[in-house]
Amino acid sequence: MSKKEIRIALIGHQFMGIAHSNAFRNAAMWTDVPAKITLKCICANDSIENLKVFAAKYGWEECETDWRKVVARDDIDMISIATPNYLHIEIAIEAAKSGKHILCEKPLANNLNEAKEMLQAVNDAGVKHCCGYSYRFTPSLALARQLVQEGRIGRIYHVFARYAQDWITDPDFGMVWRFDKKIAGSGPLGDLSAHSIDATHFVTGLKFMEVTGNLSTLINERPLDSNNPDGFKGKVTVDDVAQFLVNFEGGATGCFESTRLATGRKNYNTIEINGEKGSIFWNFEDQNYLLFYDNTLSPKEAGFRKINVTHDIHPYNGGWWPQGHGIGYADSFVIEVAEFIRSIVEDAPFSPDFEDGVKCQEVLEAIGQSAESRGWVTIVSHG
Amino acid sequence: MSKKEIRIALIGHQFMGIAHSNAFRNAAMWTDVPAKITLKCICANDSIENLKVFAAKYGWEECETDWRKVVARDDIDMISIATPNYLHIEIAIEAAKSGKHILCEKPLANNLNEAKEMLQAVNDAGVKHCCGYSYRFTPSLALARQLVQEGRIGRIYHVFARYAQDWITDPDFGMVWRFDKKIAGSGPLGDLSAHSIDATHFVTGLKFMEVTGNLSTLINERPLDSNNPDGFKGKVTVDDVAQFLVNFEGGATGCFESTRLATGRKNYNTIEINGEKGSIFWNFEDQNYLLFYDNTLSPKEAGFRKINVTHDIHPYNGGWWPQGHGIGYADSFVIEVAEFIRSIVEDAPFSPDFEDGVKCQEVLEAIGQSAESRGWVTIVSHG
Amino acid sequence: MSKKEIRIALIGHQFMGIAHSNAFRNAAMWTDVPAKITLKCICANDSIENLKVFAAKYGWEECETDWRKVVARDDIDMISIATPNYLHIEIAIEAAKSGKHILCEKPLANNLNEAKEMLQAVNDAGVKHCCGYSYRFTPSLALARQLVQEGRIGRIYHVFARYAQDWITDPDFGMVWRFDKKIAGSGPLGDLSAHSIDATHFVTGLKFMEVTGNLSTLINERPLDSNNPDGFKGKVTVDDVAQFLVNFEGGATGCFESTRLATGRKNYNTIEINGEKGSIFWNFEDQNYLLFYDNTLSPKEAGFRKINVTHDIHPYNGGWWPQGHGIGYADSFVIEVAEFIRSIVEDAPFSPDFEDGVKCQEVLEAIGQSAESRGWVTIVSHG
Amino acid sequence: MSKKEIRIALIGHQFMGIAHSNAFRNAAMWTDVPAKITLKCICANDSIENLKVFAAKYGWEECETDWRKVVARDDIDMISIATPNYLHIEIAIEAAKSGKHILCEKPLANNLNEAKEMLQAVNDAGVKHCCGYSYRFTPSLALARQLVQEGRIGRIYHVFARYAQDWITDPDFGMVWRFDKKIAGSGPLGDLSAHSIDATHFVTGLKFMEVTGNLSTLINERPLDSNNPDGFKGKVTVDDVAQFLVNFEGGATGCFESTRLATGRKNYNTIEINGEKGSIFWNFEDQNYLLFYDNTLSPKEAGFRKINVTHDIHPYNGGWWPQGHGIGYADSFVIEVAEFIRSIVEDAPFSPDFEDGVKCQEVLEAIGQSAESRGWVTIVSHG
Repeated sequence: MSKKEIRIALIGHQFMGIAHSNAFRNAAMWTDVPAKITLKCICANDSIENLKVFAAKYGWEECETDWRKVVARDDIDMISIATPNYLHIEIAIEAAKSGKHILCEKPLANNLNEAKEMLQAVNDAGVKHCCGYSYRFTPSLALARQLVQEGRIGRIYHVFARYAQDWITDPDFGMVWRFDKKIAGSGPLGDLSAHSIDATHFVTGLKFMEVTGNLSTLINERPLDSNNPDGFKGKVTVDDVAQFLVNFEGGATGCFESTRLATGRKNYNTIEINGEKGSIFWNFEDQNYLLFYDNTLSPKEAGFRKINVTHDIHPYNGGWWPQGHGIGYADSFVIEVAEFIRSIVEDAPFSPDFEDGVKCQEVLEAIGQSAESRGWVTIVSHG
Repeated sequence: MSKKEIRIALIGHQFMGIAHSNAFRNAAMWTDVPAKITLKCICANDSIENLKVFAAKYGWEECETDWRKVVARDDIDMISIATPNYLHIEIAIEAAKSGKHILCEKPLANNLNEAKEMLQAVNDAGVKHCCGYSYRFTPSLALARQLVQEGRIGRIYHVFARYAQDWITDPDFGMVWRFDKKIAGSGPLGDLSAHSIDATHFVTGLKFMEVTGNLSTLINERPLDSNNPDGFKGKVTVDDVAQFLVNFEGGATGCFESTRLATGRKNYNTIEINGEKGSIFWNFEDQNYLLFYDNTLSPKEAGFRKINVTHDIHPYNGGWWPQGHGIGYADSFVIEVAEFIRSIVEDAPFSPDFEDGVKCQEVLEAIGQSAESRGWVTIVSHG
Repeated sequence: MSKKEIRIALIGHQFMGIAHSNAFRNAAMWTDVPAKITLKCICANDSIENLKVFAAKYGWEECETDWRKVVARDDIDMISIATPNYLHIEIAIEAAKSGKHILCEKPLANNLNEAKEMLQAVNDAGVKHCCGYSYRFTPSLALARQLVQEGRIGRIYHVFARYAQDWITDPDFGMVWRFDKKIAGSGPLGDLSAHSIDATHFVTGLKFMEVTGNLSTLINERPLDSNNPDGFKGKVTVDDVAQFLVNFEGGATGCFESTRLATGRKNYNTIEINGEKGSIFWNFEDQNYLLFYDNTLSPKEAGFRKINVTHDIHPYNGGWWPQGHGIGYADSFVIEVAEFIRSIVEDAPFSPDFEDGVKCQEVLEAIGQSAESRGWVTIVSHG
Repeated sequence: MSKKEIRIALIGHQFMGIAHSNAFRNAAMWTDVPAKITLKCICANDSIENLKVFAAKYGWEECETDWRKVVARDDIDMISIATPNYLHIEIAIEAAKSGKHILCEKPLANNLNEAKEMLQAVNDAGVKHCCGYSYRFTPSLALARQLVQEGRIGRIYHVFARYAQDWITDPDFGMVWRFDKKIAGSGPLGDLSAHSIDATHFVTGLKFMEVTGNLSTLINERPLDSNNPDGFKGKVTVDDVAQFLVNFEGGATGCFESTRLATGRKNYNTIEINGEKGSIFWNFEDQNYLLFYDNTLSPKEAGFRKINVTHDIHPYNGGWWPQGHGIGYADSFVIEVAEFIRSIVEDAPFSPDFEDGVKCQEVLEAIGQSAESRGWVTIVSHG
């Protein structure tokens, strides 16, 4: 009785393409994934020579440059979309029509309507879908959710999330496509705050009721050529920093910021949750830890405890090693892929799916509107 | 040639009254204050018996229950106001009329108009005035300002400040006057965020241009009697949490929150400043430290460095002991008082003064208005 | 019915003299000490002019230069000894003979025989005695002891203590008396490790059974004049670093180091205790905190928790302020003095007393012998 | 022009076998290793069925149960030894005789003579050899070495290393082979301190001149069956804790401890190095960071800086991801394997090799002797 086989095609071979490749290649090594995973085809907008090098390096059987051909193939079961955001919708809809299961990177789309169309498409096709909020599969963040669900935090008062990076603090850092709104959709709002919003959904279950936002571009133009900072400049059309306040259903409040100008912060993806019975602080830069404050203890002995989330008893066994031997960034993708494939094989519910992607997009869209109107915006579906 | 004498009367004998008493009593012990400080008179709304006990304990020569008599006395040079906020204005104006120098606790008043009246009064009287933003006199925060002024942070991109406490997370914690808007003016907004606003002014020199705020009361009523949580309840009329976004003049952005519901955070008065050349993180819970990231170093060796701000070379000599032997909460008041008295004796400029108090009040007022109007509010004077 | 009065004479007016002065002056302000404390007389080897300045600054009524006169006075109840170590014995014995209660700085003496003589003297005289291991009165270290006594640590496996400073890492830092064995007795061994040994006794109750030690002088000579590093040099006759391993009665092991050459460590007085049921980590540089790991919790949620030891429920009320408003170095001395005076007034047992000082000296002496003999040395009394 | 091929056989399939498998399987994915790596054969003392499962999971082409056959095969270029320690010598010598390059896990052998024999064998055979001190390939520890070599630490005063775990703090944790001296050789001494000794060699270049050690077994017997703690017990014949003091050539001192009884410490592999110009603190539990104190800065701004060692400029590019996206435990093995294979292909020097293994064994042996003789033991070769 052999295992089912899941044949993958990956579209996109940059940062996320590499993370996906590793995850598909090694999922069966680190987890008990109930399928044989075949890395069938890598497809990207590149020369066939370069693609062959990539395929050899990461273990893909074939290369392709035309994604339309790929999604139409009969010998593919799942499409993994790791392209720039503006391409997500077209690929996903075609793939759904072809009956392929879909793993699509976040944010799901460049705007809410597109995201909804994509959700409609996968629902119509009856395929499984995953929106790549990979941080959900970090054992420490999954433990945070568990503690909330077990009642250890109690009524939630506040969510406080900051996702800060610093790779563009230098004004002479040159124009890249990420600074062009047409291609990138937004700046840190969609790139970073999307993670914070999803993490809030995931950990707390709170619904965003209304938001007021502020999007700022502090460095308005950048040299077209990094090596010639005094040469011609291009206009930055996305935000450098996104900030928003939130009222959640039920009364909890939220305060969010994301930025790429926070000098010294490398991948400071953090979330603090304060509740009646306890508090949580999570920081991806210390991904193998979770801080937890248990307010039911006497103040004599209460304090934020630094849990090393690498024990077998932790979500996803705390990784693959004896306790204290931490895992890294790539490993969340391995778990994500394994869990998604399990849901396909077992026809079980999966999350984060495109509906989660839509929910997040609703909040992002409301923030964008709020930044325009300079007032509070209600999230209709209370996503 | 004897030192000048400065004779003090203190009005108020609660938390701040004790902090002031210690500061006046010991300033000459810890600093080279150029005056003899005489603790002439303690005045408070209490029995004369209790006041005598207080006076004996802290070293006051005389007791008084009527502040009007005190401020009128000829043998008093300075009035220290440590009463509930709503009493500040009347006392300060009378004291100014009597030609007394004034140290008034923060926030200066319960609203902007009052604050301006108080400023007018001290200016008219030509007396010296101090608004008690005592954290300015923490050596570590003073070092932060120094680094900014020396150009080590460069152009500032963001200010990110959270002041979080947790003493009322229990819904059964009973009504106290601090939950009554008429007496307290506001909740954490005036109590905690006032410190964050002043610290921002102090450290960065940035001017608040516009704000959008959110004031929430999450626990709307509390038992009148803590020991009988099921008994009669009173209505909480102040905020439990205050949040606001800021656009500063020149383009920097700010994100602020203060709350008394942040379970696990005891006196988490923090400020992060991100600039082109460096970043700073300060947390009063670790008051003897400052984190500084120097972005002019190679990324190979750059990192937030934890400066133990207890060296002679640091502001205010880093305290009074050999390095590594930290100081405590009370000591900032000692430095504040010593510096204020020095400014009186030397007739030198002093800050934070009532003008700083007014500037802060302008921002607080705009936040309050914004929370009402649910939109951005411009700070006219760009304080 | 008036309070008893305790009249103090302090001998020595350097670093420790200042710490003692503050403690006596302010003990009644911060604690409910059951006596009127009178700062009767300061005595030191200095000009009477300088002493008068000191007395005025810190509140001493009289000055004196001859300690023999002071200890003989009838109007003195307690002698506080804050001189260089080699003078302790003579002063203490004379003071005891005169029936004075004695607070003597640590280490009690420059060798074990002297320490024993001193203990004999106070026992013979029936006076109260305190050996100034002031860190015992830091609320966080006192909490550590409490947790051990309540069984929260269980059987102790290890004690791991490092006391590291860095004020002489520069080889051009000039000769001071502290580098002369005749005056100072030893280097960091007596100055720093003495604190670690006493803290071990205090927190764990473990008895030192045998030790093996290593005393090293890494910088053998230093300029006589700091401003002329190329000029004449003096020989350093004390250790720069002291290390020793310990077998405690009952099988626990210990590892200790003290040094003044640990670049970057300012007053890094630390102790870690690992037991079957829990662990503790204490670091004076963060004196308002204690780290505690509770091993009876599930590994799912166990972690070192950072207890902010500033709550009323904590030893010595966690200090004098609302929680989160930490205390400083000087405050342990205030508590020490208040507790010692309470023991005098109430004729109650007090610790650390001279017996604790002797116990510590036994261990120091054994370490010194071991460093000479280069083998293990048994501590006869198992102090 | 095709790449050279390196055909691997792995002996052992437990913890280290898995780490090696992943490293060989993925080295070409993460690094530019100049060879095609073929996972030819896995060999272990297990059923062929189990081995087939292992081979399929990790990508090995063939299985074998007799290591002698494997090392004799012509189609194998490198033998990777991941068996229990006592088997290292026989396998390594046979493999060397067969002309195979060898990667052998640490400690190299169960005693010094064996280690020397192994070194002789590989030298005689002229094969490349690696002793698996994998932590050397953690970018943060490699950065520590770089800083030392660049003169940023200056003259070294102290090495302070603690490697602490807590997996056997429960006295009812049952007997496993690791507690049997005949099989395991030693307890934490060889298992953990070996890493600290090698890290000291690697980072500082210091030579161990003499040591005094203390080996203790605190839990002398353990249940043969974990599920029946009251049943029969077995005798623990290895140390639970190993401590030793060191005098290095040139005068620096060292203090080392390793233990498996440090409740709360999971894989607390730490090293602190204090020098005249700077200090370093490294802790594997935070493997993506290095703390560095630069003593050439003014004390005004000096502090331990927390370097996030994930930048392209860092050793081994700080891992494979954008800065701030850390790597995990498994990744050091990937780098180790890639570097070792590079040294084979390019016939370049490699370290850590068996000579490093011998050096470490010399120190371990001296510590063991010292613990027996209870005195200092000189390390003849000053390894």
